[in-house]
Amino acid sequence: MENTQGKIITCKAAVVWSPEEPLVIQDICVDPPQKIENETERAFPRILGHEAVGMVESIGEGDKDVKEGDYVIPIFNGECGECRVCKKEESNLCERYHVDPMKRVMVSDGGTRFSTTTTKDGGSCKSQPIYHFLNTSTFTEYTVLDSAYVVKIDPNAPLKHMSLLSCGVSTGVGAAWNIANVKEGTTIAVFGLGSVGLAVAEGARARGASKIIGVDANSSKFEKGKLMGVTDFINPKDLTKPIYKMIQEITGGGVDYSFECTGNVDVLREAFLSTRAGWGSTVLVRIYPTPRTLPIHPMELFDGRTITGSVFGGFKPKSQLPNFVQQCMKGVVKLDPFITNELPFEKINDAFQLLRDGKSLRCLLQISKFLTK
Amino acid sequence: MENTQGKIITCKAAVVWSPEEPLVIQDICVDPPQKIENETERAFPRILGHEAVGMVESIGEGDKDVKEGDYVIPIFNGECGECRVCKKEESNLCERYHVDPMKRVMVSDGGTRFSTTTTKDGGSCKSQPIYHFLNTSTFTEYTVLDSAYVVKIDPNAPLKHMSLLSCGVSTGVGAAWNIANVKEGTTIAVFGLGSVGLAVAEGARARGASKIIGVDANSSKFEKGKLMGVTDFINPKDLTKPIYKMIQEITGGGVDYSFECTGNVDVLREAFLSTRAGWGSTVLVRIYPTPRTLPIHPMELFDGRTITGSVFGGFKPKSQLPNFVQQCMKGVVKLDPFITNELPFEKINDAFQLLRDGKSLRCLLQISKFLTK
Ligand SMILES: NC(=O)c1ccc[n+]([C@@H]2O[C@H](COP(=O)([O-])OP(=O)(O)OC[C@H]3O[C@@H](n4cnc5c(N)ncnc54)[C@H](O)[C@@H]3O)[C@@H](O)[C@H]2O)c1
Ligand SMILES: NC(=O)c1ccc[n+]([C@@H]2O[C@H](COP(=O)([O-])OP(=O)(O)OC[C@H]3O[C@@H](n4cnc5c(N)ncnc54)[C@H](O)[C@@H]3O)[C@@H](O)[C@H]2O)c1
Ligand SMILES: [Zn+2]
Ligand SMILES: [Zn+2]
Repeated sequence: MENTQGKIITCKAAVVWSPEEPLVIQDICVDPPQKIENETERAFPRILGHEAVGMVESIGEGDKDVKEGDYVIPIFNGECGECRVCKKEESNLCERYHVDPMKRVMVSDGGTRFSTTTTKDGGSCKSQPIYHFLNTSTFTEYTVLDSAYVVKIDPNAPLKHMSLLSCGVSTGVGAAWNIANVKEGTTIAVFGLGSVGLAVAEGARARGASKIIGVDANSSKFEKGKLMGVTDFINPKDLTKPIYKMIQEITGGGVDYSFECTGNVDVLREAFLSTRAGWGSTVLVRIYPTPRTLPIHPMELFDGRTITGSVFGGFKPKSQLPNFVQQCMKGVVKLDPFITNELPFEKINDAFQLLRDGKSLRCLLQISKFLTK
Repeated sequence: MENTQGKIITCKAAVVWSPEEPLVIQDICVDPPQKIENETERAFPRILGHEAVGMVESIGEGDKDVKEGDYVIPIFNGECGECRVCKKEESNLCERYHVDPMKRVMVSDGGTRFSTTTTKDGGSCKSQPIYHFLNTSTFTEYTVLDSAYVVKIDPNAPLKHMSLLSCGVSTGVGAAWNIANVKEGTTIAVFGLGSVGLAVAEGARARGASKIIGVDANSSKFEKGKLMGVTDFINPKDLTKPIYKMIQEITGGGVDYSFECTGNVDVLREAFLSTRAGWGSTVLVRIYPTPRTLPIHPMELFDGRTITGSVFGGFKPKSQLPNFVQQCMKGVVKLDPFITNELPFEKINDAFQLLRDGKSLRCLLQISKFLTK
């Protein structure tokens, strides 16, 4: 760590210039953190990325949450600790630092901390702002976050695994623990066995679920699922009946909890109907990029089934994640199987290709040299 | 009470012969209760009615729940006490005696206990079966119910008020107490101020809600509402903005709980949006006779708002209603304002007209002479 307090840093970052082009690793200028002070549209150029682990280089004036040298993870859903929601146990949707996929600047002063050192066609430092993403922007050697979006972690934690807690694993495990509150001996169904769905399964396994049914249209997901406690597999393509009927048969009436991790509203309906009438609970974990409303009739809510959305698995990041880190260190939840690949930062576009091809759960990108654990 | 054990009784009942005709008060034959042993369509002639109070005349072989002379109320949602749901605290939707609006016969043996003494055009006793309704059929001097649908009540309770606990008041108060679990000092909105909506308000008042907003398109409902604790009134016809925006303004962000008691899916959406993001909870209390599905986008469930259906206010009838009767006797919940009219049994069609004209909440029909309290 160099003394960079109050200074502009030049470093390498993976910048996305448009939705069509691959990411470009290039030098950027990073402004120092600022004192704490609106917009809606998507913007380019931009630095994406929201799962990471890093060390605090410098802090803004008045920040008491972290100090130089702390190990931290970025969190897309902040916690101010002071708003009405933060003060209530029921919810993690902080009114001030709520997740906002449209946000492209700092909450504190509405500015950006990134700019190009050279414009694409050659130019001078700070010639063009680079936008932030999801209040995190981690595809860079150096980033600046509003401190509400930073969680300090135990420096003895296995650092490379900690990036998983920034989003995917916390979201899935938390959906099982905090939203559904899976009890020992119960049955669950997970629709979609990507990282998030597998983290749901791992969370349910840790809670002692007696049956964990995994549903995925890609049968290659099944091997991995076994490591996370999945006991039964269903590939909808192999069925001649609706998935929910199959699950009702396997469980004698339906599972106690189901989790929708595919982002498909028709699958959502199957997940809803696959739970037990009386007390079945469905938790939505995915984003639904569709104009379609819920394909559920109001009267179908009278069978005692509930349906709930979940953001960041219901974890209040600053107050609850440090304890989750400890549980991971004790092995309550296994993190290792989620990292299927490792690549140097320069190969970031290869990492995206692995994801697209369904060949990786999480690919660890080595950005800084000092995080070697 | 005469000794009628095992005998056919002839008595008067209000029979519905078709959906278009007024009810006909006529003599019917009532078979004695039978030992305990499927169908789907609506059927006529039929005896409607499901809110009542009465005395047990005789019981079927092996019945241990009630005995001759007990005061009882009928309940449309039964409780066997032994199925998986009955054994769980979470739900009142008994697997065996679940509410079934299509049911037209006894659960025990699939038969009916009613028949015409004369057919409409003249004929002999038992010439035609009369169907049961909602496992209760109370528009008659004598009825027969599967004992799972009967709750014994304290003989010292004010009997004429007890009929309210058969459905409307239990459904509304229970929605506030058992489903939403309204806490002291919280805010609520009730959409639709019929008996059920007013019972929700009364339940919330009893729990110490600080603000109870009543919404009804009929402004004459507002006077009555005040008696049940309604503090603010909204008639949607007077508004130039959506109801939910008005409620968000009044409450600085939305109510903690909303209750849908109109049966209209567009109102349902307003009720959903009128709660606070973070922890707002909407309880559906009405039946929705429409093919339309929920007009809610899946992503709207990610703001921490929940939506739940409720049957009989979540009360497990046999195990929880006797205590509710005691609470009513202590005045925790006021029942008197719900009975707005009283008429002799013969005037049953006038009672329906009063309801249709919105001029009555509940009209008490005096059917038997011995229930005079
Ligand atoms: N709610 C939150 O707070 C939150 C947080 C993080 C991520 N997310 C969501 O999670 C996503 C990432 O999750 P992931 O990494 O697990 O995704 P993924 O794409 O790796 O996994 C999706 C899985 O679903 C399967 N699938 C897709 N359609 C299917 C269908 N119709 N039937 C059966 N299976 C089907 C795919 O084969 C795949 O295995 C993000 O894009 C975001 O939408 C939500
Ligand atoms: N879930 C259950 O277990 C359960 C139990 C009992 C009854 N119910 C339902 O409750 C109904 C009886 O309830 P009730 O006696 O309160 O009914 P009601 O008809 O007396 O009351 C409905 C009220 O809603 C108002 N309303 C109707 N449409 C409206 C709109 N678009 N905007 C604003 N206000 C509107 C009406 O003016 C009326 O005051 C039954 O028909 C049944 O559907 C359900
Ligand atoms: Zn907050
Ligand atoms: Zn039961």
